[in-house]
Amino acid sequence: MEIESILKQVKEGAVSVEEAAQLLNMGNYEDIGYAKLDTSRKERTGFAEVVFCSGKADSHLMSIYERLYEKEGEVFGTRASKEQYELIGNRFPQAVYDPVSRILKIEKEGKKRTGSVAVCTAGTADIPVAEEAAQTAEFFGTRVERIFDVGVSGIHRLLSRVDVIRKANCVVAVAGMEGALASVIGGLVSRPVIAVPTSVGYGANLHGLSALLTMINSCANGIAVVNIDNGYGAGYLAAQMNRLAEGER
Amino acid sequence: MEIESILKQVKEGAVSVEEAAQLLNMGNYEDIGYAKLDTSRKERTGFAEVVFCSGKADSHLMSIYERLYEKEGEVFGTRASKEQYELIGNRFPQAVYDPVSRILKIEKEGKKRTGSVAVCTAGTADIPVAEEAAQTAEFFGTRVERIFDVGVSGIHRLLSRVDVIRKANCVVAVAGMEGALASVIGGLVSRPVIAVPTSVGYGANLHGLSALLTMINSCANGIAVVNIDNGYGAGYLAAQMNRLAEGER
Amino acid sequence: MEIESILKQVKEGAVSVEEAAQLLNMGNYEDIGYAKLDTSRKERTGFAEVVFCSGKADSHLMSIYERLYEKEGEVFGTRASKEQYELIGNRFPQAVYDPVSRILKIEKEGKKRTGSVAVCTAGTADIPVAEEAAQTAEFFGTRVERIFDVGVSGIHRLLSRVDVIRKANCVVAVAGMEGALASVIGGLVSRPVIAVPTSVGYGANLHGLSALLTMINSCANGIAVVNIDNGYGAGYLAAQMNRLAEGER
Amino acid sequence: MEIESILKQVKEGAVSVEEAAQLLNMGNYEDIGYAKLDTSRKERTGFAEVVFCSGKADSHLMSIYERLYEKEGEVFGTRASKEQYELIGNRFPQAVYDPVSRILKIEKEGKKRTGSVAVCTAGTADIPVAEEAAQTAEFFGTRVERIFDVGVSGIHRLLSRVDVIRKANCVVAVAGMEGALASVIGGLVSRPVIAVPTSVGYGANLHGLSALLTMINSCANGIAVVNIDNGYGAGYLAAQMNRLAEGER
Amino acid sequence: MEIESILKQVKEGAVSVEEAAQLLNMGNYEDIGYAKLDTSRKERTGFAEVVFCSGKADSHLMSIYERLYEKEGEVFGTRASKEQYELIGNRFPQAVYDPVSRILKIEKEGKKRTGSVAVCTAGTADIPVAEEAAQTAEFFGTRVERIFDVGVSGIHRLLSRVDVIRKANCVVAVAGMEGALASVIGGLVSRPVIAVPTSVGYGANLHGLSALLTMINSCANGIAVVNIDNGYGAGYLAAQMNRLAEGER
Amino acid sequence: MEIESILKQVKEGAVSVEEAAQLLNMGNYEDIGYAKLDTSRKERTGFAEVVFCSGKADSHLMSIYERLYEKEGEVFGTRASKEQYELIGNRFPQAVYDPVSRILKIEKEGKKRTGSVAVCTAGTADIPVAEEAAQTAEFFGTRVERIFDVGVSGIHRLLSRVDVIRKANCVVAVAGMEGALASVIGGLVSRPVIAVPTSVGYGANLHGLSALLTMINSCANGIAVVNIDNGYGAGYLAAQMNRLAEGER
Amino acid sequence: MEIESILKQVKEGAVSVEEAAQLLNMGNYEDIGYAKLDTSRKERTGFAEVVFCSGKADSHLMSIYERLYEKEGEVFGTRASKEQYELIGNRFPQAVYDPVSRILKIEKEGKKRTGSVAVCTAGTADIPVAEEAAQTAEFFGTRVERIFDVGVSGIHRLLSRVDVIRKANCVVAVAGMEGALASVIGGLVSRPVIAVPTSVGYGANLHGLSALLTMINSCANGIAVVNIDNGYGAGYLAAQMNRLAEGER
Amino acid sequence: MEIESILKQVKEGAVSVEEAAQLLNMGNYEDIGYAKLDTSRKERTGFAEVVFCSGKADSHLMSIYERLYEKEGEVFGTRASKEQYELIGNRFPQAVYDPVSRILKIEKEGKKRTGSVAVCTAGTADIPVAEEAAQTAEFFGTRVERIFDVGVSGIHRLLSRVDVIRKANCVVAVAGMEGALASVIGGLVSRPVIAVPTSVGYGANLHGLSALLTMINSCANGIAVVNIDNGYGAGYLAAQMNRLAEGER
Repeated sequence: MEIESILKQVKEGAVSVEEAAQLLNMGNYEDIGYAKLDTSRKERTGFAEVVFCSGKADSHLMSIYERLYEKEGEVFGTRASKEQYELIGNRFPQAVYDPVSRILKIEKEGKKRTGSVAVCTAGTADIPVAEEAAQTAEFFGTRVERIFDVGVSGIHRLLSRVDVIRKANCVVAVAGMEGALASVIGGLVSRPVIAVPTSVGYGANLHGLSALLTMINSCANGIAVVNIDNGYGAGYLAAQMNRLAEGER
Repeated sequence: MEIESILKQVKEGAVSVEEAAQLLNMGNYEDIGYAKLDTSRKERTGFAEVVFCSGKADSHLMSIYERLYEKEGEVFGTRASKEQYELIGNRFPQAVYDPVSRILKIEKEGKKRTGSVAVCTAGTADIPVAEEAAQTAEFFGTRVERIFDVGVSGIHRLLSRVDVIRKANCVVAVAGMEGALASVIGGLVSRPVIAVPTSVGYGANLHGLSALLTMINSCANGIAVVNIDNGYGAGYLAAQMNRLAEGER
Repeated sequence: MEIESILKQVKEGAVSVEEAAQLLNMGNYEDIGYAKLDTSRKERTGFAEVVFCSGKADSHLMSIYERLYEKEGEVFGTRASKEQYELIGNRFPQAVYDPVSRILKIEKEGKKRTGSVAVCTAGTADIPVAEEAAQTAEFFGTRVERIFDVGVSGIHRLLSRVDVIRKANCVVAVAGMEGALASVIGGLVSRPVIAVPTSVGYGANLHGLSALLTMINSCANGIAVVNIDNGYGAGYLAAQMNRLAEGER
Repeated sequence: MEIESILKQVKEGAVSVEEAAQLLNMGNYEDIGYAKLDTSRKERTGFAEVVFCSGKADSHLMSIYERLYEKEGEVFGTRASKEQYELIGNRFPQAVYDPVSRILKIEKEGKKRTGSVAVCTAGTADIPVAEEAAQTAEFFGTRVERIFDVGVSGIHRLLSRVDVIRKANCVVAVAGMEGALASVIGGLVSRPVIAVPTSVGYGANLHGLSALLTMINSCANGIAVVNIDNGYGAGYLAAQMNRLAEGER
Repeated sequence: MEIESILKQVKEGAVSVEEAAQLLNMGNYEDIGYAKLDTSRKERTGFAEVVFCSGKADSHLMSIYERLYEKEGEVFGTRASKEQYELIGNRFPQAVYDPVSRILKIEKEGKKRTGSVAVCTAGTADIPVAEEAAQTAEFFGTRVERIFDVGVSGIHRLLSRVDVIRKANCVVAVAGMEGALASVIGGLVSRPVIAVPTSVGYGANLHGLSALLTMINSCANGIAVVNIDNGYGAGYLAAQMNRLAEGER
Repeated sequence: MEIESILKQVKEGAVSVEEAAQLLNMGNYEDIGYAKLDTSRKERTGFAEVVFCSGKADSHLMSIYERLYEKEGEVFGTRASKEQYELIGNRFPQAVYDPVSRILKIEKEGKKRTGSVAVCTAGTADIPVAEEAAQTAEFFGTRVERIFDVGVSGIHRLLSRVDVIRKANCVVAVAGMEGALASVIGGLVSRPVIAVPTSVGYGANLHGLSALLTMINSCANGIAVVNIDNGYGAGYLAAQMNRLAEGER
Repeated sequence: MEIESILKQVKEGAVSVEEAAQLLNMGNYEDIGYAKLDTSRKERTGFAEVVFCSGKADSHLMSIYERLYEKEGEVFGTRASKEQYELIGNRFPQAVYDPVSRILKIEKEGKKRTGSVAVCTAGTADIPVAEEAAQTAEFFGTRVERIFDVGVSGIHRLLSRVDVIRKANCVVAVAGMEGALASVIGGLVSRPVIAVPTSVGYGANLHGLSALLTMINSCANGIAVVNIDNGYGAGYLAAQMNRLAEGER
Repeated sequence: MEIESILKQVKEGAVSVEEAAQLLNMGNYEDIGYAKLDTSRKERTGFAEVVFCSGKADSHLMSIYERLYEKEGEVFGTRASKEQYELIGNRFPQAVYDPVSRILKIEKEGKKRTGSVAVCTAGTADIPVAEEAAQTAEFFGTRVERIFDVGVSGIHRLLSRVDVIRKANCVVAVAGMEGALASVIGGLVSRPVIAVPTSVGYGANLHGLSALLTMINSCANGIAVVNIDNGYGAGYLAAQMNRLAEGER
């Protein structure tokens, strides 16, 4: 992305006007009418585009899976319904669907996983969000340690697993209700903690907003927060941090 | 408060019409113009009226202290300023003022304290609220154990004091920022936890509302919440519970 | 929980390393894959674990009921559906389901109830939450007095029952809409009042948040608040306070 | 305001074009540069314009008092500062200022007051707002009964005055903190209750918003709410209702 | 409600102990197990109890209609479903149901309506709430003038009806979206305006909260606000004010 | 709307009393019982009345379409359901329904479109709102350029279309989630940007409120905001601005 | 901004690499250490950069005024304090400061104003915001009509000025409290209405948020909203629209 | 933290009971009366304790600086006032205070900085928060690249620095008002983005809450959010991530 260097190459004829035009827009995309597929995202951000399946029309979903599969040889979709699995599974028998995390993916075989990320939950009701985080990180080449149901109402459960959590490159803390898990973990580890508030709870949980506020106001250091129920976003960040630690770009 | 029994006594002449009229209103009060002093509160609720000093005019404050001192032989005031202390101290040399808790009191000598209440804080900035709670409970005859600066970002500090906390009849947990302290304590003890959110923090702490929401949504059992910075209310509740445990009415 | 004393016993061989390891984590748990059952909760908090049935998968619910029944000889579940009752009832014919409170329990016979807790509601629509509170307290060995439909729009109904309310060790006040009931009761009794806001109402009731704010801001002393519609939490606190009063641990 | 009748009179010459133009705009006003004084308000609404003094420049305030005094022979101003009183008092020695309600008025002598409005407060801190309401109603010719410090934490104080409250044409209920007073009064009287939330309190009182929500959600009938601390608005409504009852227009 | 006078009569034997006990509780009620019917409400507040049908069990609804019909000879229910109409209609063929306002009533024949209340709406979607207000007021003996679809986006519609509105004893202004109707009417009339925010709208209308805030902050005088969609409450207040104006108690 | 000139003409007999009466109310309307059709809106505002179909009863919808078609020769309805299309389509075979924008219209043939408005979306999920905006503007005679899926997470897509956007008379920026699109466009163009927040997203998007706040707080100049999901309002404003630019009234 | 055309010119040597590099970044800026002055803004957006004075350090403010004056020959600053005026006025004697709008400007002489924008306020307290809007539009070459104090509580004041408002190219409606002014104007004119909520009011006005919500939810068409108290933003938009209407770019 | 291994060593006498007791509490602390200094934090989390100076009493601040300096040889304090600098500077002449970031530190000489973190701001008003982040990261051994005033209203400024930003191990994006900067950067880089909302802005910025919501809802991947104005927290996270990338623990 060295504008002057590109321009010099254009001047010298080393790069064509068309090639340069695309480079200067900082990326390519493929215009498929109702959408502009961001085909240069992997180059820019290190990870190919992911499909948010929820609410997509069948024909749109199919053509997006087809285009991405063609380009990347694999596709990762989140928030997919069982019906969408049946649709995609008919065309791609190798597609795999997990009803807990609602991930619908076609994955290359033999991918290696490196490093280590710990994904913790406060309760069992937080597991769907945690699995979305864990499987996202795994798809992007991360080794994941799952440590579920270690909420602060029985803190001995968490304390008994501290040594495992401390070995991870980063920790994903998933919690609803009052969301206190992230603060406790933050005080125990030296690596970044990605806090994911969930909408688990009722009444004054305000659909997860209370847990989000808890996490944003944490008295512990090293806590970063993502959107309510955003397991995917946490898994993505965890994969980025894991790559940092493992020396990958 | 047996209406029919009072009426029968009126009929039989055992109680005068005037006495009965007061009983049937469920209490007496003294009308001093700008206010109605609730002189039967101690009979009804077990504790004499307390003075919320903040914002009271000097002449009003003085006459309230005088009237209550006359009736009870002691006065307990909260949220008092240094100037109010000078005013009251001039008239009552035995008055004592604590600038941390802002309590301004005249207390009978030789009062006994019974039972045990633990007052914990997450940080040092929560101490003014905690002292308001502790000194309120003490004024009402409660023995108090102070355990300050045991917030969850260094949970070993709390764990090292668990045995003391467990011996109390109830626990007051005072915390600002994300307010996670109450949940952790709640999971460790068998006695009620009175959670006091404080306005300590900044940004999305929403002047204490975030901590309040954390505490209201606690995943632990046995947590009851009072208003933001309401140390007095927590101390009052703690004194009530301590009396329950000590078999006093 | 005397760390040094445990360590001394380890040193002296009085306690094995394995036993000590569990004690030092401050409790045991049973790892059943998707969850960590908190098997030492009764020791720590005085009450065995309770099942929040809502949203649990059938197989999970069944195995949790089986495990807890095996360990405790009884199980207490809240927010259960009729379908969950059919599932559990098939396996445990002695299970009892109350469609009002949505409690699904297997209870030991001949349990004794002691002390006294008053459970009051403002209106009839608050009864489901009140029954959750009452039956929770009863399961934990508390005698309960129900006083329903005594809201402040017809205050003579409440006043006519004040003598009963005053005799209780603590009072649970359940109210939606504007939630004023707790304040009025707070001014009439000497025991703690546990205020439960409900989501009953419409419009600016904000699904119970308005009632919660009313109760948190109460001008009366001795009021502690739990989450919206959290009858279980109120019943648990009431049982704790009742135990305090009855001298039980 | 019968458009066709005015037009007919124009056609027939009974009304001039200029007069008709003003009538058809439904009122007159006087344009004084920075403001348009609503000189026909008394005709339309029954009460002359009132001055909201807070934040007005000295020269503006003076000319508004002068213009209104010239037209009406009296002026009623709210939220005035002591400095504004000195300004106006210099020019109009008959001006009267009340530092509690912050009302600054020049009032005609010998005005008659009719009917009856009861103005109640929960606490003494609510008195400034209540006085604004009471004095507004009085200026507009209403007889006012003040009943202060009868909040629900000592309900016998309110009950001892119910007979007085019931005799009023309407009731103004002024309360901060949790604002429960309006509901209790609403259940005891047959006349409309005008509820005024105040910003009295702290923490989760949200500067009066909590009391406003309490009052809007009242379970009692016959409760209408005005803005936080809006004593003037309540007094105005009370005067309107009193006029209805006394058969005045 | 003169306590001393009652007591004197008890003393003198003019009133029995039982009668006095009821009077002193300020009202009677009938305890029917799950509810306490407020049978003295008409004496206290001028209007008999009204049934909020929504969510009531069939058997409860039926017995309440039966009890109230027995006592009053008529019953007024709000928020009733079609199914509830079929239930009640089977037992009381004279019952009448209006699907727009969802009012289900049994009304005495030949009731007189007096005075005048104007019920205005901003749009057609506000009519269900307006009809609840209008029919409530009518049931309580008020003559009602309906003026619908006169919102401020075409203000000539409102202005063409101002003369009718001005003749009413009070005005009910029903509006959703931005709720500006109440302010405009408030500036045009001398009688109280009861503002009813509705949940009509979408997006940032916050289910009616935005309209409520508009109305509470009105720059016009003489505006009192009730809860979102609370047509019943507005009709009740309108009937109270109409009675004031017509000299009824 | 020159009141004095109309009055003079009435006086001189050039205009009848009836005609003048209507003019002076600033518009006509047609009273059809449940509604007042604003038949002078086109004269006042330049655009005929539009039908908000959602929630209208079938008979009402039909008669409104019939009346407007009779008067204008075309009808434009928003938020229509498929069922409503079938109803109207039966009566008006020339009616056209677009299931994406949910617009149901009968349009005159051969209408000309002038000028240029750019309608941009951040993602594909924002297209329904964008189409409502685009088709509204088109119905009112505007030429529209659609530029979809150019959100800021791949900003090269937007930059590659900047020249097209800059040529428009104004820009409609439609975005959910964090709503940053409007700010970026605002910094790139010289024409007004109409920002439409959408409810697309989840968690802390607060049903579109977060995007609305983003847009209202934009650091870029020339950004005006409409309600969440209000494509119609944005299209209407765009048509107004386009007319300004094209010199039409 | 035709990337390919620039590249071709680079290739052909018609444009230097350095010039092209700047063009391709879509603008120039001047890096002055603590800030990056956007020197190409006028080319991109039609208006030179404006200075938000509030909170700027003296040395920064001075150098920004100097740099902008050097480049443009005039400078426009908003939210300036009197102290900042003294600072700048010392250096630039031709600087003019208006304490009402807090605008501090150095303006070229003899600038022409074209077209017409109407700036309306609800009350006199809204004038500071309105003046910021008016003077911003004037600085950018717009003729402005001021129509102040025409709020809806005396709607005849607004109606008497409708003809003037209707002649403007667009209307700025400035209002606090309930903010209803924008809706009423929106229903009367054919041009866009820019609504500016102000923080004028108290209590539930929520510092202007209530007025903002009113305006965003307006039932009238053609209303676009800017931030609370953002007179500058409204004036900028008005100048843009005026340019559209006057055929300027 | 291997409990069983510690116990074995106790059993075998390799570790004393006292040493083991401290280890098992997962850390040491120093009890200094009003506080418990977390002296094992560096061992647990990799960074020594930092002092939040705001609001600390002089004597407390001094003794904390003394204790930490004694233990670590350096002290890092945030949110310090000029007065606190004078206090500390008197005792420690080597203390350095930066009035922009309000950091007050005593730093060891010759510390090495490794890796790279980019700290970006949207405007100049965000610089104090950005400097807090940058200097925190620097104190913890991180090399920092400052890129200020690159907000989205002139996006060419950001695009001209993309190559620098892309080379960093992680990016801190600091923005107030609408907070869109984080999303744009997130779409351009492959490393984690730490988003810091600031309270810069006015009106509906809600003291930074609007920017926080924007960032939490970002459509770009790899964005993690900290509290409003929490530069320290962002710098801490950046230092953690930088260590990950540089292979340090």
